[in-house]
Amino acid sequence: MNFQTLKLHQDGALLRVTIQNPPINLMSVTMVQELFQLGGRLHADPGIRVVLLDSADPDFFIAHFDLEDLARAEADPSQGSKYPDINVLQSLTMSWKALPQVKIARIEGRCRGAGLEFLLGAMDMRFATPQAQLCFPEASGNFLACGGGSSFTALAAGPARAMEVLLGARDFDGVEAERYSLVNRTLPATELDAYLQDLVGRLLKRSPAVVAAHRAVFAAVYSGMVEPLFAGLAAENVGMRAAQASPEMKAGIAAHLKAGQTRENELDLPATLARLAQAG
Amino acid sequence: MNFQTLKLHQDGALLRVTIQNPPINLMSVTMVQELFQLGGRLHADPGIRVVLLDSADPDFFIAHFDLEDLARAEADPSQGSKYPDINVLQSLTMSWKALPQVKIARIEGRCRGAGLEFLLGAMDMRFATPQAQLCFPEASGNFLACGGGSSFTALAAGPARAMEVLLGARDFDGVEAERYSLVNRTLPATELDAYLQDLVGRLLKRSPAVVAAHRAVFAAVYSGMVEPLFAGLAAENVGMRAAQASPEMKAGIAAHLKAGQTRENELDLPATLARLAQAG
Amino acid sequence: MNFQTLKLHQDGALLRVTIQNPPINLMSVTMVQELFQLGGRLHADPGIRVVLLDSADPDFFIAHFDLEDLARAEADPSQGSKYPDINVLQSLTMSWKALPQVKIARIEGRCRGAGLEFLLGAMDMRFATPQAQLCFPEASGNFLACGGGSSFTALAAGPARAMEVLLGARDFDGVEAERYSLVNRTLPATELDAYLQDLVGRLLKRSPAVVAAHRAVFAAVYSGMVEPLFAGLAAENVGMRAAQASPEMKAGIAAHLKAGQTRENELDLPATLARLAQAG
Repeated sequence: MNFQTLKLHQDGALLRVTIQNPPINLMSVTMVQELFQLGGRLHADPGIRVVLLDSADPDFFIAHFDLEDLARAEADPSQGSKYPDINVLQSLTMSWKALPQVKIARIEGRCRGAGLEFLLGAMDMRFATPQAQLCFPEASGNFLACGGGSSFTALAAGPARAMEVLLGARDFDGVEAERYSLVNRTLPATELDAYLQDLVGRLLKRSPAVVAAHRAVFAAVYSGMVEPLFAGLAAENVGMRAAQASPEMKAGIAAHLKAGQTRENELDLPATLARLAQAG
Repeated sequence: MNFQTLKLHQDGALLRVTIQNPPINLMSVTMVQELFQLGGRLHADPGIRVVLLDSADPDFFIAHFDLEDLARAEADPSQGSKYPDINVLQSLTMSWKALPQVKIARIEGRCRGAGLEFLLGAMDMRFATPQAQLCFPEASGNFLACGGGSSFTALAAGPARAMEVLLGARDFDGVEAERYSLVNRTLPATELDAYLQDLVGRLLKRSPAVVAAHRAVFAAVYSGMVEPLFAGLAAENVGMRAAQASPEMKAGIAAHLKAGQTRENELDLPATLARLAQAG
Repeated sequence: MNFQTLKLHQDGALLRVTIQNPPINLMSVTMVQELFQLGGRLHADPGIRVVLLDSADPDFFIAHFDLEDLARAEADPSQGSKYPDINVLQSLTMSWKALPQVKIARIEGRCRGAGLEFLLGAMDMRFATPQAQLCFPEASGNFLACGGGSSFTALAAGPARAMEVLLGARDFDGVEAERYSLVNRTLPATELDAYLQDLVGRLLKRSPAVVAAHRAVFAAVYSGMVEPLFAGLAAENVGMRAAQASPEMKAGIAAHLKAGQTRENELDLPATLARLAQAG
């Protein structure tokens, strides 16, 4: 499979998926489509048992959803979701979550918005470097993370810390992310690589049957959370539609697009958004 | 609004509520009434979007419920709750929890019993200094935290750590409180002030609609916990009535009142209660 | 009561239960029977209010279930569980979990497999030294922790960290175990002893009524988790039967038994299992 935004490297039963969408790894419509396609392949390929997701850019894991694609999609009714309770990014996350492989993310650099949503919902485990920056900038733009991110953050971090992460809308570094249970573990890059090499080596030895048996137990233990989770996803969409009907969100996106989704603007995105809000 | 036990300072959409009920910030019946009144005002005042709760006394955030008021209330049937499954402190907590504002506590000094219950149930986020002392002294007095504290501690810290906190009935300092997820974050006082200034500044920029959208998602995701939470509150009341019918609780409160709710006795309340229990 | 594998020392209302089954504290059928008998006694003995479980061997808390007993049981249909949804180890854990006493574990040395399952499910609180090693080796042997361990780990650590612990199947030291919420707290041995002496002293002062009142609140608050938990236990048994029907699990156990459950092999069991898997 040949992708524009994802570089694949298969080594036995391990598939390393490296996000590479220069200049800042925006999650574009193309990347979403490619992640869906890759998910389809993974669903049908029992030869791959572990997926390691990382980034080719040490500064950006995923910047956030490409606002130009967002603006285009909003102008084109045919791109809207057919189901009011679930949207495309949520579908992507839930379909990856259901894959039989063990999926792990190695987060270095910024991972914001749609990127963080995907990791929180779709990955089995997340690891970060101390310099990683995890952020939901949405609230700064008068909307909310609606690709599952609001729901999955609430579940992972508990309501008090999740509310701080989502409404605070600042960068949380890797050390903070571990404390708030957004990642399993945070380690300096070289230690993290050794840690993941060991972990992946172990996971590759697990038969699909053993992994499936563990998934079945977890699904049973958390079975009471399934309906509430989907209610959460639906509530994200209600909130999103309300935001889209308000002028503030459009104005924020327009200002961001006018300033440009440039490396310079995106390195400290929370500061950029604050500056734009003040100027607007 | 002019209160005896709460000093209000409004700065734009931020309301700073400083607890000031010398000499040791006991939660008195007056304070409870004033918190209810303030809640009523907040419910009706969309101009206030963030509430920061702190204390005028660096040694005491809230000492605990005033035992003289408790003894008086018990002697007066008209002060009893009309609903067996929910009591006045639980009602206060649940009514504040439902307020649209973002509510944050900055905990310095001792925060024990009814004070800690209120913070765990009513606040969206809690922050502490390392020297803060969080404690449920109730079990030492042969009863249990029944203003929502037993239930909310179980939810925040998980059953194993919550059981230690509640049955241990010792002071847990701010560092421990962060480890046990009773607070979002613990930082030295000056760092904490900078942290909260930044956070509050961010929260003030959030529109009520965006905050409400996040609350709706969290409510959906945790919808399965609503009935169990109310069952927990009801169980607190069953336990409380059983305790009130036993001579041990009355004796403990009488001994505490005889020794006096003095600053000296209350600074290390767990030690004081242990001494009183030994003497009794 | 006189047990082969448990040394009891009663001091007032405190029962210290020291696991002593040399050479490596395997959880044998005899130990399981004795834990059931001790549970029966505790159920009927209101004079004991706190149980402290520790180990006579500083290197091994509980090595894991004795594979010779496991092989014998599998060859003898009469030893199988009569109920397909719950097995003997799960029953042991759930019966201890239901005891009125406050049950605490002090973990020093290796605590693996069935031992860790028992602690996660049956104890109210767990404490460890930094050198403690907690591990579920089951996945390395192509099966899963099915004495409640998969379910209770998912609940204690959350799905992302639990999946890492269970599928990783490595030793997690005490410091890691605290970070992943498998234990309340990890402290160096001498500090831990002082910590537990203080905590146990406090717990001994709590009346059975107060402890029961707290348990009632926790049961109400977590009432929604009861059915999912039993569904999790049932899923563990489904997974276990599938594993038992596969040749890999039998081969792994045979190789382990051939190499011997010796102190030398068991000190670093994950490495031993990896070596055996490579050789097989």
